[in-house]
Amino acid sequence: MEQEGLCDDALELENLVSQMKELMVEHVNYSRKPDALVLDYKSPEELKKIMDLELGYEGVGVVGLMPIIQNILKYSVNTWHPGFLGKLYASTNPIGIISEMLISLLNGNAHVYHVSPAMTMIENTVSHNLATLLGMGEESGGITCPGGSFSNQLAMITARTCMFPEIKTKGYHAFGKKLVVFTSVAGHYSVEKTAMTLGLGIDSVIKVPCDDQGRMRTDELERLIKKSIQQGEIPFFINATAGTTGSFDPLNEIGKIAKRYNLWFHIDGSWGGSLVFSDKHRHMIDGASLADTFVLNPHKMLGTPLQCSFLLARDKKIFLQSNSLKAEYLFRHEDDLGDGTVGCGRRPDAIKLFIGWKIYGIQGYQMRIEHAFKMTKYLTLIVKNNQRFKLVLDEPPSLQVCFWYLPIGIDFNLENKKFKKMMSMITKEMYRRIMHHGKFLLDYSPIILGEKELPCFFRIALNAPSICEKHLEGLVSEIEKMGEDILEWFEEYGDENNDEMRNGVNGN
Amino acid sequence: MEQEGLCDDALELENLVSQMKELMVEHVNYSRKPDALVLDYKSPEELKKIMDLELGYEGVGVVGLMPIIQNILKYSVNTWHPGFLGKLYASTNPIGIISEMLISLLNGNAHVYHVSPAMTMIENTVSHNLATLLGMGEESGGITCPGGSFSNQLAMITARTCMFPEIKTKGYHAFGKKLVVFTSVAGHYSVEKTAMTLGLGIDSVIKVPCDDQGRMRTDELERLIKKSIQQGEIPFFINATAGTTGSFDPLNEIGKIAKRYNLWFHIDGSWGGSLVFSDKHRHMIDGASLADTFVLNPHKMLGTPLQCSFLLARDKKIFLQSNSLKAEYLFRHEDDLGDGTVGCGRRPDAIKLFIGWKIYGIQGYQMRIEHAFKMTKYLTLIVKNNQRFKLVLDEPPSLQVCFWYLPIGIDFNLENKKFKKMMSMITKEMYRRIMHHGKFLLDYSPIILGEKELPCFFRIALNAPSICEKHLEGLVSEIEKMGEDILEWFEEYGDENNDEMRNGVNGN
Repeated sequence: MEQEGLCDDALELENLVSQMKELMVEHVNYSRKPDALVLDYKSPEELKKIMDLELGYEGVGVVGLMPIIQNILKYSVNTWHPGFLGKLYASTNPIGIISEMLISLLNGNAHVYHVSPAMTMIENTVSHNLATLLGMGEESGGITCPGGSFSNQLAMITARTCMFPEIKTKGYHAFGKKLVVFTSVAGHYSVEKTAMTLGLGIDSVIKVPCDDQGRMRTDELERLIKKSIQQGEIPFFINATAGTTGSFDPLNEIGKIAKRYNLWFHIDGSWGGSLVFSDKHRHMIDGASLADTFVLNPHKMLGTPLQCSFLLARDKKIFLQSNSLKAEYLFRHEDDLGDGTVGCGRRPDAIKLFIGWKIYGIQGYQMRIEHAFKMTKYLTLIVKNNQRFKLVLDEPPSLQVCFWYLPIGIDFNLENKKFKKMMSMITKEMYRRIMHHGKFLLDYSPIILGEKELPCFFRIALNAPSICEKHLEGLVSEIEKMGEDILEWFEEYGDENNDEMRNGVNGN
Repeated sequence: MEQEGLCDDALELENLVSQMKELMVEHVNYSRKPDALVLDYKSPEELKKIMDLELGYEGVGVVGLMPIIQNILKYSVNTWHPGFLGKLYASTNPIGIISEMLISLLNGNAHVYHVSPAMTMIENTVSHNLATLLGMGEESGGITCPGGSFSNQLAMITARTCMFPEIKTKGYHAFGKKLVVFTSVAGHYSVEKTAMTLGLGIDSVIKVPCDDQGRMRTDELERLIKKSIQQGEIPFFINATAGTTGSFDPLNEIGKIAKRYNLWFHIDGSWGGSLVFSDKHRHMIDGASLADTFVLNPHKMLGTPLQCSFLLARDKKIFLQSNSLKAEYLFRHEDDLGDGTVGCGRRPDAIKLFIGWKIYGIQGYQMRIEHAFKMTKYLTLIVKNNQRFKLVLDEPPSLQVCFWYLPIGIDFNLENKKFKKMMSMITKEMYRRIMHHGKFLLDYSPIILGEKELPCFFRIALNAPSICEKHLEGLVSEIEKMGEDILEWFEEYGDENNDEMRNGVNGN
């Protein structure tokens, strides 16, 4: 490397990036070793003692950098590890890391065109391409937001202003009537947080029941809309979910209902929207083209680095029209994207999908998705064929497999309240044990399906391309191993009324 | 480099990071060369033609990566260039880049403790340290938000729920009364965007006049609060600004008024909050300790990569108490920081300040700030001593220097409307010329000071450590050069009523 003539910053950068590269390569490589841990779990109290968290007057200087980084890596989750199966995202990939290096090199800010010409063009291009893939038409486009929740928030802000512009200036208290929002019982909580934020109140969110597959019931949706109107409320916004913990709402039917009652049709496709890249599975989001607004987070299913969330609209102009305050001191150009948001400075997250799409193409993303479906099918199969496990849905429609572990001698009976309580406790304890063992990081969740509130189950999300059959076999073994003495644990610690419950459980 | 035994991802990462390093070093090194451009400006139409923005079915593969990156770099602003003087941020530094590499390697998500133990501890630590420096006490702490606007938003959401908890559940329409917010005419527009978002309406934001130095007038603040109460409104939130385009609101006095009327005292210190790191200039944010909530963006004055914004509170528990929905399927731990926000997944931005603080210490940040003040003083001096320039404030209190360029033969007269219109047009045209020439990227802005609405002036922000005296001398020369024939331009294109205006201008 020719170093002559390098300015100080460039020299320092060269030196540090070289060192960091070593750590990065080591971290990724470690994750694939058979004895690697996904997490060396420590409690906050333990970390407080063992991590060097002191911040003082004097700095340690650049020579102290790598030990600090190593320390952080040591006590963090290794998302590259194939045992990282609990969240709807996994690691990113080398392309993703390079994209983030680019963004930090630029210190990119996509709020106004004159400091981000290339980034602005890229954001407009990617948004339009995504929305077009979804069938949202020629005038479609969008913007990125810092995560799916903020995309959902901006969708509802925009909808409210488009439909009731006087609220933007005069406020909601002057409006006098109650605006009402619909989402399914399995929808993401950001709809409620947005209702809270917007001053609608959490009570304004009407939770539509799901069928026994976890999909919003459209008969119930329509009944609840009518009921709300009869009560003198103003329904204005439907949030359909394309990819909850397990399911996809019937978008076409919901879209028709939205049109019939003149409501804003928003689809939260944070998780499932990326299926638009798969010829085979795109049908699962049929009806996307009916949406007024659609959220898609490539950071979940496509391995783009966190965050990368697109809020798309059939009419890309609505964001500027609804949300601009015409602050001329900053925004002067129709391509000043920040003006269409409620923020100011913005990371140019669209770059990350742009680069990934360029490199992998739709084809590459499609292969990634197909692999994930294949792994989902495989895990479903081995869980189904193991009598210690019970699937929540016999045919998981998406890339999540949800199931319970059943200790020997326990019958599965969702009619029995004590059994349900026991299942939740066992799932949580096993989750804790598995996490502390460090080979896998899963998640657990309860859910309401149809009329039933299901006890906590394991939730496995399968989207990392590094996962293969042997990891899933290992997962099942790990759960079995951690469950070997779980009934003994439950009898001793699980509940004060152990005997009664055990008898009750077995008696049913 | 020992490559044997590396997994595919690790190998690819090693290869790509090496290539990217070369581009990064080149990009930074170029920025310091005498003939370097800060931006090769192209319009959106031009970029559409010359950038390869096509996204297709087939990917170009990893070999295509570096040309894509080079293309983006070519048409982006080089923030490392000492001529990047228009925004309240500059480039980051090598430490900042390494921090972002770490975050992307981790694919860090600081929403729940169990996927981000180290990051959560770091966020808690840095927030508490920052708030303690600001004098906010033992129980203080905070969280990061994706930018200052979202920090201001979360502050107002939290304030509203703390003060009127029924709005969180029942909504603002049921509240019946008008909530009112106060900020100065020079405050950031995010206060209005937040009022819009929260359903308060833009009209609920009362703009308090500033004195002739751009500081909120506390006599006017108190008068307007009283008036609002008399009108039956409910004032609840004061936003004081620690660092507008030029000035600092009198925080101590505003804090006392907030207490007297029982209002939430929020300080937007997005820009000026970082002065807490400087012994010499900390006094400018005296009164910070009185704030209920305080925003501080290290990505502005301290060179931390975008975004890095802290929302701090005297009582760190208020975020969880106000904003949690108790969504047990995700949040189970008191250190699940996402639950205190209105988002879900979150970038662990606190890591970036943590690493910077470790390396540089308070001392290092202090030196950075002192250098910036020195440069501000120098630019002020050379502008003051040049008869073609007129300072907006004779003594810029912060790290921004604002001034007009006066063509030969023009007298400065703010009483003359035509002169003011002419000044605005000349400033904008010169801004355009300077940007197209590519040696400097400035900004311009109008402002209301005291009773006067000032025409657009150049606004130079000086916080990059790479700026030295010769760059500022070059800046003054560049402006003079670009202004040589500006009067001829104005006579030809500036206005339909050229002669009249010219005469009017000279006649006064």
